Amino acid sequence: MNRTEHAPGEAQAIRQRIRRGEIAGHTSGLAPGCVQGNVVILPADLAFDFLRFCQANPKPCPLLAVSEPGDPALPALGADIDMRSDVPRYRVFRRGEMVEEPTDVGHLWRDDLVTFILGCSFSFEWALLEDGLPLKHVARGQNVPMYRTSLQTIVAGPFHGPLVVSMRPFKPSDAIRAIQITSRFPGVHGAPVHIGKPDLIGIRDLRQPDWGDAVEVAADELPLFWACGVTPQAVVAEAKPEFCITHAPGAMLITDLKNSQLAIL
Amino acid sequence: MNRTEHAPGEAQAIRQRIRRGEIAGHTSGLAPGCVQGNVVILPADLAFDFLRFCQANPKPCPLLAVSEPGDPALPALGADIDMRSDVPRYRVFRRGEMVEEPTDVGHLWRDDLVTFILGCSFSFEWALLEDGLPLKHVARGQNVPMYRTSLQTIVAGPFHGPLVVSMRPFKPSDAIRAIQITSRFPGVHGAPVHIGKPDLIGIRDLRQPDWGDAVEVAADELPLFWACGVTPQAVVAEAKPEFCITHAPGAMLITDLKNSQLAIL
Repeated sequence: MNRTEHAPGEAQAIRQRIRRGEIAGHTSGLAPGCVQGNVVILPADLAFDFLRFCQANPKPCPLLAVSEPGDPALPALGADIDMRSDVPRYRVFRRGEMVEEPTDVGHLWRDDLVTFILGCSFSFEWALLEDGLPLKHVARGQNVPMYRTSLQTIVAGPFHGPLVVSMRPFKPSDAIRAIQITSRFPGVHGAPVHIGKPDLIGIRDLRQPDWGDAVEVAADELPLFWACGVTPQAVVAEAKPEFCITHAPGAMLITDLKNSQLAIL
Repeated sequence: MNRTEHAPGEAQAIRQRIRRGEIAGHTSGLAPGCVQGNVVILPADLAFDFLRFCQANPKPCPLLAVSEPGDPALPALGADIDMRSDVPRYRVFRRGEMVEEPTDVGHLWRDDLVTFILGCSFSFEWALLEDGLPLKHVARGQNVPMYRTSLQTIVAGPFHGPLVVSMRPFKPSDAIRAIQITSRFPGVHGAPVHIGKPDLIGIRDLRQPDWGDAVEVAADELPLFWACGVTPQAVVAEAKPEFCITHAPGAMLITDLKNSQLAIL
């Protein structure tokens, strides 16, 4: 994916404010229409296994870009991107323990670090909202509810763990439309992995999400479940790598890509 | 749609046997892979309203071809087609009453008759089976269950009435796949119109279909509902046209089109 010709201006301007430390929190609503990405930065000796894990589990781990080892640039997502400074807030882990939440990781950068950027549900939610479908958690200003499931990801090296899903309720005809729309966006989780019947994937009580805020499923609605970017975060935490950097929740990398560019059809 | 270059041989050979009266019943399983069509033949003074009805209700009435008034040919669906003889068994209606079930309608043909061929679920069922999805009613050799719903079609002239749907149960992940596959086939009813929760579309008891055979929906399955070609048949019957010819149930027009040619993607 190298199409960075569209509207880089706004995303670039916001990245510059982030780089200067003027934005250090959530990126939701910033640079509307631009793709935001989940960030995982790992030492090169784990990078091949993590890349294999993403390849084998594309629904929870849709890769938008992978850097050269040691190179903080990501030209496919923005000519000027510097991964040491362009995420509003980072989390730094050593052997699975979070040790720091800095706004810059220049002091921690190493020649062997590889950056992975994964697509995020903001992009397919944009497509659903553009089509006029209602998203309850967005209307209420809440986080989407997320659940650990009984479905297992495919193992690669030290990376393994359960699939985490996000849930959005829809009326039946809107559910069908939502499946059609998100099928066009495999780069940002794609079609749902499950519909209705939460018990079949090990979710006992929709009112008790493992992450995010509970959202009511009305009697005339069905719950739709999408593979969620929390999956690789939980998998990496469980693998307890010697060193790892991620974005802080909600503080994503803003790229020059437009959400509409991710549509395959 | 004018692509009749693929494999016309088998369909043509079967039409010739039908024309000679050697096949006078169901066409299910004949000329595998070829599109079969529902048949409605109406006098020209009703043809414009019926065409408007199909245009306004494409999911139950996906038009594959419309003839010139008085012309029994349908070159878009097969070079040799003669609508007076190429359907295994017809039903003839006068003022809404069925008066005859002949295997040939040459003796009834009129200079003002217009033929409408509508896509049929056999084509999308072929696509589902090709993908490996199980169809319970097919496995059991039964007719698909069909239900009158509380959803209304859009009125055009004398044509109006409820939407009729067919129901197929699937496990949730197969249901998502079935929505994706049938979305590619708008010419043969396309994506489902409803999923789960039959009561929301006025179906009180799935075990009591209005047409066809009941099929069990297991605890780990969801019912999917597709717009059904019985809709226009019921609408035409209700309109009680002075004169009308249809195919007898299950005795369809076999065309030269391949099911795969109907995929839009």
